[in-house]
Amino acid sequence: MIYFTSDYCEGCHEAILRQLIATNMEQTSGYGTDSHCANAARLIRQACCAPDADVHFLVGGTQTNLTVIDAALRPHQAAVCANTGHIHVHETGAVEATGHKILALPSEDGKITAAQVRALVKAHREDEAMEHTAQPKLVYISNPTELGTIYSKQELTALSNACRELGLFLFLDGARLGYGLMCRENDLTMADLAALCDAFYIGGTKVGALFGEALVISNPLLKEDFRYLIKQHGGMLAKGRLLGIQFETLFDNNLYFQISKHALAMADRLREAIAQAGFSFYAESPTNQLFPILPDSLLAELSKTYAYTYQCRVDEHSSAIRLCTSWATREEHIDAFCADLLRLSSR
Amino acid sequence: MIYFTSDYCEGCHEAILRQLIATNMEQTSGYGTDSHCANAARLIRQACCAPDADVHFLVGGTQTNLTVIDAALRPHQAAVCANTGHIHVHETGAVEATGHKILALPSEDGKITAAQVRALVKAHREDEAMEHTAQPKLVYISNPTELGTIYSKQELTALSNACRELGLFLFLDGARLGYGLMCRENDLTMADLAALCDAFYIGGTKVGALFGEALVISNPLLKEDFRYLIKQHGGMLAKGRLLGIQFETLFDNNLYFQISKHALAMADRLREAIAQAGFSFYAESPTNQLFPILPDSLLAELSKTYAYTYQCRVDEHSSAIRLCTSWATREEHIDAFCADLLRLSSR
Amino acid sequence: MIYFTSDYCEGCHEAILRQLIATNMEQTSGYGTDSHCANAARLIRQACCAPDADVHFLVGGTQTNLTVIDAALRPHQAAVCANTGHIHVHETGAVEATGHKILALPSEDGKITAAQVRALVKAHREDEAMEHTAQPKLVYISNPTELGTIYSKQELTALSNACRELGLFLFLDGARLGYGLMCRENDLTMADLAALCDAFYIGGTKVGALFGEALVISNPLLKEDFRYLIKQHGGMLAKGRLLGIQFETLFDNNLYFQISKHALAMADRLREAIAQAGFSFYAESPTNQLFPILPDSLLAELSKTYAYTYQCRVDEHSSAIRLCTSWATREEHIDAFCADLLRLSSR
Amino acid sequence: MIYFTSDYCEGCHEAILRQLIATNMEQTSGYGTDSHCANAARLIRQACCAPDADVHFLVGGTQTNLTVIDAALRPHQAAVCANTGHIHVHETGAVEATGHKILALPSEDGKITAAQVRALVKAHREDEAMEHTAQPKLVYISNPTELGTIYSKQELTALSNACRELGLFLFLDGARLGYGLMCRENDLTMADLAALCDAFYIGGTKVGALFGEALVISNPLLKEDFRYLIKQHGGMLAKGRLLGIQFETLFDNNLYFQISKHALAMADRLREAIAQAGFSFYAESPTNQLFPILPDSLLAELSKTYAYTYQCRVDEHSSAIRLCTSWATREEHIDAFCADLLRLSSR
Repeated sequence: MIYFTSDYCEGCHEAILRQLIATNMEQTSGYGTDSHCANAARLIRQACCAPDADVHFLVGGTQTNLTVIDAALRPHQAAVCANTGHIHVHETGAVEATGHKILALPSEDGKITAAQVRALVKAHREDEAMEHTAQPKLVYISNPTELGTIYSKQELTALSNACRELGLFLFLDGARLGYGLMCRENDLTMADLAALCDAFYIGGTKVGALFGEALVISNPLLKEDFRYLIKQHGGMLAKGRLLGIQFETLFDNNLYFQISKHALAMADRLREAIAQAGFSFYAESPTNQLFPILPDSLLAELSKTYAYTYQCRVDEHSSAIRLCTSWATREEHIDAFCADLLRLSSR
Repeated sequence: MIYFTSDYCEGCHEAILRQLIATNMEQTSGYGTDSHCANAARLIRQACCAPDADVHFLVGGTQTNLTVIDAALRPHQAAVCANTGHIHVHETGAVEATGHKILALPSEDGKITAAQVRALVKAHREDEAMEHTAQPKLVYISNPTELGTIYSKQELTALSNACRELGLFLFLDGARLGYGLMCRENDLTMADLAALCDAFYIGGTKVGALFGEALVISNPLLKEDFRYLIKQHGGMLAKGRLLGIQFETLFDNNLYFQISKHALAMADRLREAIAQAGFSFYAESPTNQLFPILPDSLLAELSKTYAYTYQCRVDEHSSAIRLCTSWATREEHIDAFCADLLRLSSR
Repeated sequence: MIYFTSDYCEGCHEAILRQLIATNMEQTSGYGTDSHCANAARLIRQACCAPDADVHFLVGGTQTNLTVIDAALRPHQAAVCANTGHIHVHETGAVEATGHKILALPSEDGKITAAQVRALVKAHREDEAMEHTAQPKLVYISNPTELGTIYSKQELTALSNACRELGLFLFLDGARLGYGLMCRENDLTMADLAALCDAFYIGGTKVGALFGEALVISNPLLKEDFRYLIKQHGGMLAKGRLLGIQFETLFDNNLYFQISKHALAMADRLREAIAQAGFSFYAESPTNQLFPILPDSLLAELSKTYAYTYQCRVDEHSSAIRLCTSWATREEHIDAFCADLLRLSSR
Repeated sequence: MIYFTSDYCEGCHEAILRQLIATNMEQTSGYGTDSHCANAARLIRQACCAPDADVHFLVGGTQTNLTVIDAALRPHQAAVCANTGHIHVHETGAVEATGHKILALPSEDGKITAAQVRALVKAHREDEAMEHTAQPKLVYISNPTELGTIYSKQELTALSNACRELGLFLFLDGARLGYGLMCRENDLTMADLAALCDAFYIGGTKVGALFGEALVISNPLLKEDFRYLIKQHGGMLAKGRLLGIQFETLFDNNLYFQISKHALAMADRLREAIAQAGFSFYAESPTNQLFPILPDSLLAELSKTYAYTYQCRVDEHSSAIRLCTSWATREEHIDAFCADLLRLSSR
């Protein structure tokens, strides 16, 4: 079986593995207070042109999302996101479990707009009984989104401006950040993210690491006592140096970005083959997640060799699926899939 | 100013006031353990033909909703309701503050159907990654709904059957229950509610009491340790006898139902006058909340004398408002409003 | 049976009852936005010499405690109190249910000292792994305490100074405030409380009202969005005017203080009779709660006529009990109890 | 600097590292559904003689504690533990953040007894106002405890019997389990733990793994929907196979127990040297954590070369510290420390 189900099917990039081996018997202090974490944080601040940012390393995305949101909000405050947002549909109510409502905005492409946020906040503030409704206070976006789409610099700037004018936090989930930043259509930089968001994170789990997300906090209001929050929510890794070592490696010589490019090149080839075979897409993703709409009969054939994720039914005879490439995707697997797709679809 | 803003503008029905005066210097034990509460519970069990039901008295609706839902659910479980549901849009995230997600179903008329619940649960259970999403476990409905509509016996039976087959709890918010049960279109009884729901409550605040909701729990699974939950959520009134005395009075000689009828008669007259004046309704409510769509210019005139609740904008020139009648509505106020409406709209 | 079990055995003071009757059919807006609440708040601000304080009315004490503490703390922060504190031992984990740990300090008399608070905070801040422990951020005291004792002005000033220097909030639970402020040993005023505490409340439930606590917030940091918190925790009474009317009455012509005096006079007589009969006290309470240590055989006799609260076993043959007087205690009941006590104990 | 601060100063045992390297480019499904996790679970069930147990792999101890306790308790229920319990003093209120109170029992040696649990539950159930206090429902113990002590089979059996008779869950935190099970004084087996506890976990982080705790659930009541709880609390590792691979290795050929022995042998040598140098211990630990009481002047010298954890001040001139050995402790470090200790203390 060849897996296109996700971008976390393999272990880690060999450069990381080498560093884990090399440092294995070093003695360090625990909980992220070691020199590897300090060095990784320094490299990330540099890459973000954000000398004053706080950088924390957490194990996974859900953990990071719930910790940041719980740290940012008072009890009556809500997070705003797209109705496709990972925190809304794929984290078992983790944000609600910390006591906060999620206000979901309609979205076709996984993104939300500054205008939507402005309208929501305006409606809340004009409501005479506003205290009877949860108060929007933080905007959560993911980039790339759950549908593989990305925000342009203009869109993100507009969202950032709206949030600042209205006194809301802007938090960006970058679980697949490398695959967004390195795609052709992107015009955002890490420095833009640090400048426009109050906090964002750089996904390691899906981009070359065994695990780990590097959280960058720009807004001083979100920095205070953040380590308490990590610990309280069970996100403080005892051997924190493992996170430091991994991000040190990823941000040494731009490894993070180079390996992201590979995934995008592999996705490009898949995308072309799918289009060439005459199929369309459920979402127009320029990144490493593709959502082709394929006939169920074809899927039945493909699923004998290839693992993918079922997205949703589109009509009586066809479904959208998700195919993921990653830093680890092998060219021969792409070759095989493309060949099989063309062969099977031309019958 | 004449208030049609809500059904809680006045104090309480005079029969209740008399009983509060008569019992004022009685000494009783606290926290609902007194004989008035016991007697009120007995009367309610009788009215529900539910000799085994547990009856608890709480001060208000939000308190009751959050306490029941928190008592019923494990941490990963969610409440299902209409997107107009009071718990979803008008309780400041009170359910989420207890840690639980709300799964909102689309609704035009404030109601949800058994088919919607079945489809939601089916989709959840067929999801291979079901543990990544909150698990639907309790269905919350209100009757009358937030739009004044009511469930038929057939609809409620279908919902109840769906919930039982699927292992979900069915919880009915009856904050305005009297106004639902006594309206012409209704074919449900208190006994039906006790038989079809796992828990429901009989609203006192909006139907003649100073405050208070009588919660009826039929399902033994929801009964266990319920008083701990009331206390923990701050809902256990020290002088609990005040709740007992009020519900004793309301359920003595059917006072609860008689005073509900008055509100409905007043609403009927309003409804007729609005129709006669040529206006339509945002929702087809047979109960004591009416949602006429009126021209903004007319509203500007009416608002000089009458207080109402703004519902939403309908088009450029007109808005939906909410008018409430209650057990306390005076005929002369209805007369005045109807006359003014006809006069102003005929200009 | 004559009840000395608590100070909430009866309904309300007749002056309040009269006002409830007089205002019963007034139409007002809901949720505490009416003119009675505004007037009561004005009277309370006046009585506190605190023109800038925010005043909110809540139904009960547990509700008030959990709402204030949840409003004040970030998720990793803890409330500090005596190990006898009501929030620690008698509210079913209500504070923990909002997510916050309680750090309990040892106390013999129900009070805690500035020195204890300073030592606790110092130990926390000197801990290298401080983020592995909950951060003390709010000090909760009750006055009178759960053992009937009271804070002197000097003690409260010392606590207040400690809290301000250390950046902690000071919150005073005044469920029985009148009985503290009017007792002979007291040297605190309402103005002192407003000046020394960040928030405190004036108990109505136990001092003449049917129910209700008036929360006074002095610290602007605690004021923001407080009504959202009340609503979210189910503490916002629909007919909020009932709270306004009651506190209006209590703070008109010092009724609150006058009726408190009565309870204290009744307690004085009980205290003298108990001492005269040769018994000692479990706690030295100058207020309306008395904790005599009595032989079990005597208690067996007394309990035929008088209801009291069992406190704890003291030795093999005797137990401490609690006797409460209140605004409603009748002189003839005190006479009877004292006579019976002397008679039974002299046998 | 030589670290005796903890048992998580190094990376992982070389056998684990080899397996991580060997499996690095395997493609597997995520979230613990892979064959390595299945195999590791099988080996653990075998080692526990518990064919019906559920085994889950989580990243760290705090995460595991809060997830199990939240899964086990209804909102009004509390966890019972020693006042030294990790959940009570060293997890930033993580359990309270899930809404549950901790009831701490006094303990000198880090352990609690069946008698203490029975007395606590009896007092709760005999309290007429029991619903005003949190209900004890789960007993949390750690073995070895935070003071390095261990439970005997007799003690654990008594606790287990008490819990079962009273209807409480017994949950054992085995973050350092290997160091307990392999010490000379121990008479418990893995099979005993599975039989006597409702759930317990086998610590990997401190015993040879990079990270990871293997949770064994024996009681069917705790099994239901447990994966939802892991996900909701952010504890579900995307590349779950990393946990499977590590525990597969640890439970292949008893590696877990062999490497535990090494730590104990190293601790034995430290213990002897400390005693030989004439010093006593703050706690009598037979396991890998030692708590010597040493003069401050000696500590000042030692701290130039050796890192340890400060425990507490014992008297004006001396303090208790904690020294940890582990699977990774090097003999030459022990040699050096013992020599320096003897040399410095004989001056």
